[in-house]
Amino acid sequence: MTRKRLIECATAIFTEKGFSRTGIDEILKQVNVPKGSFYHFFKSKEDFGVAVIDNYANYFGNKLDRFFNDEGLTPLARLNAFIENAKLGMEKYHYARGCLIGNLGQELSQLDDPFRHQIESVFLDWEKRLCQLFKHAQRAEEVATDIDCADLASYFWIGWEGAVLRAKLVKNKKPLQTFQQQFFARLH
Amino acid sequence: MTRKRLIECATAIFTEKGFSRTGIDEILKQVNVPKGSFYHFFKSKEDFGVAVIDNYANYFGNKLDRFFNDEGLTPLARLNAFIENAKLGMEKYHYARGCLIGNLGQELSQLDDPFRHQIESVFLDWEKRLCQLFKHAQRAEEVATDIDCADLASYFWIGWEGAVLRAKLVKNKKPLQTFQQQFFARLH
Repeated sequence: MTRKRLIECATAIFTEKGFSRTGIDEILKQVNVPKGSFYHFFKSKEDFGVAVIDNYANYFGNKLDRFFNDEGLTPLARLNAFIENAKLGMEKYHYARGCLIGNLGQELSQLDDPFRHQIESVFLDWEKRLCQLFKHAQRAEEVATDIDCADLASYFWIGWEGAVLRAKLVKNKKPLQTFQQQFFARLH
Repeated sequence: MTRKRLIECATAIFTEKGFSRTGIDEILKQVNVPKGSFYHFFKSKEDFGVAVIDNYANYFGNKLDRFFNDEGLTPLARLNAFIENAKLGMEKYHYARGCLIGNLGQELSQLDDPFRHQIESVFLDWEKRLCQLFKHAQRAEEVATDIDCADLASYFWIGWEGAVLRAKLVKNKKPLQTFQQQFFARLH
């Protein structure tokens, strides 16, 4: 359970402050774990970072599954429900947190190749899931059949991360709403 | 000229490394300026940051004018020319730099209200210029008349910053191309 608590605490702090500016000591103090115990679970701060990203990717993948497989809604309504949920999530944390993957992607793209590849593979996983949803949406005639679903999914996450960033800057949901309205307005 | 050299050097370094991780000493050393001289021009690092953002906003605004007022091209072809130019710019610096405003917006959204407002006002200026271009595009029948040009301009810059971020992560132009293709594909 100590490993899990370390990872969960770091997920919140990294999402808000980033990786470089967060000291391990700060996390250990919050969860009341001695340094020796940390190195029992993780070889280094980098190793810890990899585990935190993996954990978030797993959590977020399950969340996407929950929304994207909701048979009670049309495919595009499922995507919309995910967005509405994310809007509430950002509001809850006063637009301070945003998306761990987007934040670390920005921060670590300069620094470290293994992180870069790990983060990019998370984006590719999200794209794959969303591409499937868009294919369902095409069959349900919600998305024009001449649109390439893989490209559209890639385009969605590119814009989504831009919208989350901008929402953090202005501290309100307007960028998320603009993105949502404009993206959905032109899929036919 | 010392002031200008300090600002130009900082623009490159901030765009690559960010504001917090860059020391004033590093910039002084690169342009060979003594510390006392720095404080002759700027009250503090924050004051310097404001001047660097102002300078970039001015440079980028002129660049947008140059592209968006090019009467030899149709309105959307002008926007496309801007994107092609930006793609070359990112390639030139091996996808290490991206956009100063997007980078600092991400980094400083946590930290500092005056910076937040300054950066947001730069985005709003870009939106205003692009909104005008889209209105020309509507008159030229390149953009459907039922599209709100202000919202479309806001949507463009949201997605654009997302694409620049992602290009920095993967170190290639594919995210910029996907954004470009998908954005232009559905404006009618």
